[in-house]
Amino acid sequence: MLTGPATDAGPARPDRAPRGHARRRDALRALLREAGLDALLVTDLVNVRYLAGFAGSNAALLVHADDDADRGEDRTVLATDGRYTVQAAAQTPDLPVLVERACGPALLAALPDPGVVGFDSAHVTVDGQDALREALAAGELRRAPGLVETLREVKDAGEVDALRQACAVADAALAGMLAAGGLRAGRTEREVARDLEDRMREAGAEGPSFATIVATGAHAAVPHHSPTDAPLADGDLLTMDFGALVDGYHSDMTRTVVVGVPEDWQRDLHALVAEAAAAGRAALAPGVATRDVDAAARDVIAAAGFGEQFVHGLGHGVGLVIHEAPAVSATATATLRAGMTVTVEPGVYLAGRGGVRIEDTLVVTDDGAAPLTQSPRDLQVPFRHDA
Amino acid sequence: MLTGPATDAGPARPDRAPRGHARRRDALRALLREAGLDALLVTDLVNVRYLAGFAGSNAALLVHADDDADRGEDRTVLATDGRYTVQAAAQTPDLPVLVERACGPALLAALPDPGVVGFDSAHVTVDGQDALREALAAGELRRAPGLVETLREVKDAGEVDALRQACAVADAALAGMLAAGGLRAGRTEREVARDLEDRMREAGAEGPSFATIVATGAHAAVPHHSPTDAPLADGDLLTMDFGALVDGYHSDMTRTVVVGVPEDWQRDLHALVAEAAAAGRAALAPGVATRDVDAAARDVIAAAGFGEQFVHGLGHGVGLVIHEAPAVSATATATLRAGMTVTVEPGVYLAGRGGVRIEDTLVVTDDGAAPLTQSPRDLQVPFRHDA
Repeated sequence: MLTGPATDAGPARPDRAPRGHARRRDALRALLREAGLDALLVTDLVNVRYLAGFAGSNAALLVHADDDADRGEDRTVLATDGRYTVQAAAQTPDLPVLVERACGPALLAALPDPGVVGFDSAHVTVDGQDALREALAAGELRRAPGLVETLREVKDAGEVDALRQACAVADAALAGMLAAGGLRAGRTEREVARDLEDRMREAGAEGPSFATIVATGAHAAVPHHSPTDAPLADGDLLTMDFGALVDGYHSDMTRTVVVGVPEDWQRDLHALVAEAAAAGRAALAPGVATRDVDAAARDVIAAAGFGEQFVHGLGHGVGLVIHEAPAVSATATATLRAGMTVTVEPGVYLAGRGGVRIEDTLVVTDDGAAPLTQSPRDLQVPFRHDA
Repeated sequence: MLTGPATDAGPARPDRAPRGHARRRDALRALLREAGLDALLVTDLVNVRYLAGFAGSNAALLVHADDDADRGEDRTVLATDGRYTVQAAAQTPDLPVLVERACGPALLAALPDPGVVGFDSAHVTVDGQDALREALAAGELRRAPGLVETLREVKDAGEVDALRQACAVADAALAGMLAAGGLRAGRTEREVARDLEDRMREAGAEGPSFATIVATGAHAAVPHHSPTDAPLADGDLLTMDFGALVDGYHSDMTRTVVVGVPEDWQRDLHALVAEAAAAGRAALAPGVATRDVDAAARDVIAAAGFGEQFVHGLGHGVGLVIHEAPAVSATATATLRAGMTVTVEPGVYLAGRGGVRIEDTLVVTDDGAAPLTQSPRDLQVPFRHDA
């Protein structure tokens, strides 16, 4: 594969993500003015994509605090290298493009009257900061971490649509696999994971949103299990944690089934986790502290005596990154707002026996939350053969 | 998918990469002493994997300059979080593990008598540096970028074996696809890319080593083309640039074929690029400047009048990262050493008509270089049907 700036990356694949990038830049400007910045250099590629729609692998953006895109004042400049000029023209037709390999320094060097320029000190490296300082002839370079991330916590309608589509793709993959008998004894974890990923691609995903987790039997007691060649066996609890990537947005869902005939303890464990998940989902609403959402689900599990076996937080924000703010856990400090998209994923893990986790992605609404993942949440028993 | 430190990541998948990590740490120590450092904090995950064999997603390593692993003196400590304790025990049984989420600061805070501690300022962020400074009670924190990367330029025998295997997997995938008639008119670029990736996984790859490039017809004039639903057509030049990931090591190969009956200009263009590639490969030897290798290939193409259509550098180093030092280009400053692994990939691109690129991965030997990718380099004509 070619390295570095060469020629163009080829036929542009327009960012199908929701537009409204100019509106997002205006929202950012309010934060810049609050922070006393004249401009912000945006170097994180996810943040660049969020603010400009450009999805290449080398880019930066300079946003001025005093512009107003709504009034047609927008001096924002995108910088990228020569591989991406056609892609930039297609994905960010509204912005001028500066073609340079060292995007951040090039944007600063081009500023006639910089003033106070913020940069994201949580993303820029120590050596990278030197290069920025050197490029900024006059003016002041000031740390300004997390501003775009703050905006990204609350999704706009286009983003929710993209997440809904990503969730629908994962739903379709699971339903299709179940209908095709894809969860039969003898198939391996790896085969099931590949099957889900193939079906998500066929349903329109750019790919899986993270490495698919398929854990059968005792493996289901391991929250982060990676698929192996272990075969599914009758009587196994089987956990699948997977998602689809659509327009850069990540879906995230977990379902646990029993292969063959469920035993009572498996039914009971699944019912318990399902009850906790329902309690967590029901607790979601604007103004609610995410730690209270965690508690709503955790209390159900703790009351049944399995508190020690629920070894992780209840959930996390999800969007252009699979794990983003807000955290939903016992130690989290966030408060929910309408438009936040979060997962609710309680689990109970019994070493050596298996485990159950049930996870949905939801969007916080004006008075509660709506699930974006829609697969059935009751215990599915593929290929039950009553002996 | 779960976020943050939870419980263990599950049954460890031991790093099948070559061992000799302790030997690599000893080699690093020589560089630390030269640089006047008492210790180095290694935070880049690829560098952690290179030095310790640990492949989790959150880790850091502290290496002391005055130890000597060869004599059994090795105070190196690995830090990772609670998700990875079992994996760390399996992959780095020789090292004590500090279980903390903030790996870098935790390692520094645990130092009784730090002295001068280096850190990689090309990887650590500005905010991350603050956290390190705060954690380092006494002693001096000093910038020390690129030390491990310098070591990584020259591969040891185990690394070359892993790269050889990754290359063999890609060779097998291409041969299998050709034998199965996978390059027929009507198939789409996407289908060919998926076919190659599936076959690489079946042959033992962890996955593709980068997003597979398949470009047919006029698309072959675009060096970085992403596969589309465009169908292969009789008479197309078809370029495939792909590789396999094995034990963390990346192979990289490009072949260009003609679908159907080649025209003379296609044969001529392929022969020209093949000649340039052969000249580039022949120029590889210890002591040779990589820009001279670039020139050896470029001169062949320029002499034929296509210099302007060879729009990128000749190649790059490859290993635990798909693009790493040394660069092989007209502006590169590196000199080859035995054990370096590089690509040679000249290309000529004719807008609107197509292009040819031929790429191999090679290892520099004591007196030249040996190809690790072995697929035939002459013009393959799948499904030729002489009309």
